[in-house]
Amino acid sequence: MANSKYAYVRDFELPDPLLPGVFMVLRIDGHSFHRFSEKHNFAKPNDVRALQLMDHAAQDLMEEYPDVVLGFGESDEFSFLLRKSTSLYNRRHSKIVSTLTSLFTSSYVFHWSRYFPDTPLGYPPSFDGRIVLYPGTKEVKDYFAWRQADTHINNLYNTTFWALVQQGGQTTTEAHSTLRGTFAKDKHEILFSRFGINYNQLDAQFRKGSVLVREDLEEEKDGEVSRRPKSKVVMLHCDIIKDEFWEERSGLLVES
Amino acid sequence: MANSKYAYVRDFELPDPLLPGVFMVLRIDGHSFHRFSEKHNFAKPNDVRALQLMDHAAQDLMEEYPDVVLGFGESDEFSFLLRKSTSLYNRRHSKIVSTLTSLFTSSYVFHWSRYFPDTPLGYPPSFDGRIVLYPGTKEVKDYFAWRQADTHINNLYNTTFWALVQQGGQTTTEAHSTLRGTFAKDKHEILFSRFGINYNQLDAQFRKGSVLVREDLEEEKDGEVSRRPKSKVVMLHCDIIKDEFWEERSGLLVES
Amino acid sequence: MANSKYAYVRDFELPDPLLPGVFMVLRIDGHSFHRFSEKHNFAKPNDVRALQLMDHAAQDLMEEYPDVVLGFGESDEFSFLLRKSTSLYNRRHSKIVSTLTSLFTSSYVFHWSRYFPDTPLGYPPSFDGRIVLYPGTKEVKDYFAWRQADTHINNLYNTTFWALVQQGGQTTTEAHSTLRGTFAKDKHEILFSRFGINYNQLDAQFRKGSVLVREDLEEEKDGEVSRRPKSKVVMLHCDIIKDEFWEERSGLLVES
Amino acid sequence: MANSKYAYVRDFELPDPLLPGVFMVLRIDGHSFHRFSEKHNFAKPNDVRALQLMDHAAQDLMEEYPDVVLGFGESDEFSFLLRKSTSLYNRRHSKIVSTLTSLFTSSYVFHWSRYFPDTPLGYPPSFDGRIVLYPGTKEVKDYFAWRQADTHINNLYNTTFWALVQQGGQTTTEAHSTLRGTFAKDKHEILFSRFGINYNQLDAQFRKGSVLVREDLEEEKDGEVSRRPKSKVVMLHCDIIKDEFWEERSGLLVES
Repeated sequence: MANSKYAYVRDFELPDPLLPGVFMVLRIDGHSFHRFSEKHNFAKPNDVRALQLMDHAAQDLMEEYPDVVLGFGESDEFSFLLRKSTSLYNRRHSKIVSTLTSLFTSSYVFHWSRYFPDTPLGYPPSFDGRIVLYPGTKEVKDYFAWRQADTHINNLYNTTFWALVQQGGQTTTEAHSTLRGTFAKDKHEILFSRFGINYNQLDAQFRKGSVLVREDLEEEKDGEVSRRPKSKVVMLHCDIIKDEFWEERSGLLVES
Repeated sequence: MANSKYAYVRDFELPDPLLPGVFMVLRIDGHSFHRFSEKHNFAKPNDVRALQLMDHAAQDLMEEYPDVVLGFGESDEFSFLLRKSTSLYNRRHSKIVSTLTSLFTSSYVFHWSRYFPDTPLGYPPSFDGRIVLYPGTKEVKDYFAWRQADTHINNLYNTTFWALVQQGGQTTTEAHSTLRGTFAKDKHEILFSRFGINYNQLDAQFRKGSVLVREDLEEEKDGEVSRRPKSKVVMLHCDIIKDEFWEERSGLLVES
Repeated sequence: MANSKYAYVRDFELPDPLLPGVFMVLRIDGHSFHRFSEKHNFAKPNDVRALQLMDHAAQDLMEEYPDVVLGFGESDEFSFLLRKSTSLYNRRHSKIVSTLTSLFTSSYVFHWSRYFPDTPLGYPPSFDGRIVLYPGTKEVKDYFAWRQADTHINNLYNTTFWALVQQGGQTTTEAHSTLRGTFAKDKHEILFSRFGINYNQLDAQFRKGSVLVREDLEEEKDGEVSRRPKSKVVMLHCDIIKDEFWEERSGLLVES
Repeated sequence: MANSKYAYVRDFELPDPLLPGVFMVLRIDGHSFHRFSEKHNFAKPNDVRALQLMDHAAQDLMEEYPDVVLGFGESDEFSFLLRKSTSLYNRRHSKIVSTLTSLFTSSYVFHWSRYFPDTPLGYPPSFDGRIVLYPGTKEVKDYFAWRQADTHINNLYNTTFWALVQQGGQTTTEAHSTLRGTFAKDKHEILFSRFGINYNQLDAQFRKGSVLVREDLEEEKDGEVSRRPKSKVVMLHCDIIKDEFWEERSGLLVES
């Protein structure tokens, strides 16, 4: 065969299996999204359309990959939890990280016009992906707590910052200066006293991020047992830092 | 800071630098493209529109990443050669493989309607990516020879197969049966004697695949020397197995 | 500095940290010990001197590395459990596997003459080492159960085999043939009826292997609290497959 | 089989092949050799016995592993070059680094009494090992140049330092102070003018380190061709920074 003399080049493809028995978290981040959001005039501090498009892409990914049981998104990033026992693509690192990031990206571009009907996509956006392994349930919970705490911190800052600029007439330099050294309660106070904004009454989507959970559906078909219980992906904007979230959904962290 | 008690989860993000001083080849493959091509009625054995769309995505990737100096595409796959000395993303494995695969995917979806104006994209396609390291120039040349030899073998088979089906009225089962055990010259003979097709006169794009080469542009601006010579990406459908291709483009494999 | 122009070669030393938060098991195996045991006339089926020397080397390793909390040895291999939270050598893979295997080897050669006073060491023996990561306590227990079950299977076979040869006058070929297809109870029966050996009354060291456990020592020094509780390494030849072993030593598998 | 229910623990043993087609350099370092050399009263600045023992262990390693073609040692470290095409242990990382470090250690302890007949070994010494991959011949040469340049720098410093202490009557603190900020020529001058020592006439073993080269032996046995040309390992104390060394031994860096 004409090809066989070159086939040795495949010997350079080394195996890259991820350790079994641990959770995988895939985090996908927008690549150069500062530029991308400027170019497409994303609203500040939050662009509902852009967030919904991220949510849609994440939902598509979870519909396609049943072993992804949880997603959490904020701004231009989304994190996904894979079942501990997943054997997706034989746990090959490159295969998983590239394919899932690719599908997320594809869905983002595919659905763009639905969320931005009046803003044509100016150029193809891209995302990077990384997989982090977490051995235990504590670390998984803390990972997602870390992301949601980050959402809170960023959103409070950005909300106050843009209120100072958009409603308070400050320059961005002035607004940064105003906020330097302030604590959370100071920002709440600025929002309330100067702009009449009660931060805690803002849309939970902005304050809490987007939580996508796979929920199993009960199935009763006259005694017939289906091979896999059907599931659907549900969107929430709830607290995932406290234990309640996990206690009510113990299936997310089951061992197998 | 509210976030700091969770920050330890970052300790689980392990470094993944690729060895310096070796060539990287990134190969991107369509994921479940058999189904995708059926769904979108790709022409057999080759769909020019689909190939041109792949080429366009590859071109976008090379425009964005100057350290990608060569691309080779056939069917639903594309291989890219990165400069040996590239320090792209500090040679971090996941970052490179995910971001470049993401951009390729994004461009593919973005430009779909240009090549398939009458066929709406039915769902978001995805690609997987992998990076293989090649230490020497011989292995790099042999890698690309391997892919082009594969192009030849597949295309000769597919061309004959679909001629038997589309023009010869065979079922696909019959056509597979007809071709079982045949050599290249037998397939040439079938094409010529039964269908009047001279294989070697078919479009080089089908027989040779798509070769994308970065070529440096001469720059003369009244003695002014620019920091980096500008380059453009050129499309060819030439032989890359023989040494001539590489000899004429020694810059592709330079050490640094 | 004369050296600086070459210092770039250090860039090729890539990081190799092991995932945090998981148990490490180091398994050290004799390299070509079939030849080594022949050369030094090890007694069959078990050479007490050789086993005690292995135990001594293992003990030395555990004295030196407090994060090694458990050892299990049989024949020419020894497995070691490292505390889940160990930060030994910053969890660098090569550093740990090479240094601990080196120390084990060194101790083996160092103490040789104590266990083989009449048999000079003929040449330097070597061992290989490997580290396997186990995320959970179940896998750790099962790993050690796997090794002890292996000890049992091998020792029952070897004991019967060498009884047939040494006491029964069979050739080794005949003995293998006699044992082909036999179950455990058949071997027990052969040992008892033909050689008067009650397998279960043989030395536990042979049947169970060697278990080295780190035990914490109580410390009372007139109210003075020492920084680290002292510990000593204790040798046992007990069952480690059943849960009792682990339940009585819950400290081995604590999270941190 | 009693063992089979635990056999799944082997799934956690992940493959760790090293990239083909690149040179491996194994560097072995004494672990805590400052303490070890104090304990065993090594002569300062160089202990001939200790260096010869290192050389002997390195020689043993090279006799055992024909794919190790070059060794370079200084002080308590030794570097080894493996043939680019070696398939030793299928290029498994842990296997190679642990086994070779183990053999080196073993030989060091085994031969101790030959070089230190009057100094019993006080405790088992250990070494760590690491493997670095080098893609090209330039990097390999520069790696060894780096080590020999280091030998020169360290030895010139140490020689001068200990002359100041041993012959000049300085304390170690004073000697460090005397040498602070000095250049090579200053140290030469101190040695010559104050102690009558011509550095360049000191033993080459100290100034250049130990070079172990595998040399092929011609074989003529009445036309009979042996399967593998025999080789022997030769000790040199020559310059390996300049090109001459490599030009005269082109076989060291051949591709296969």
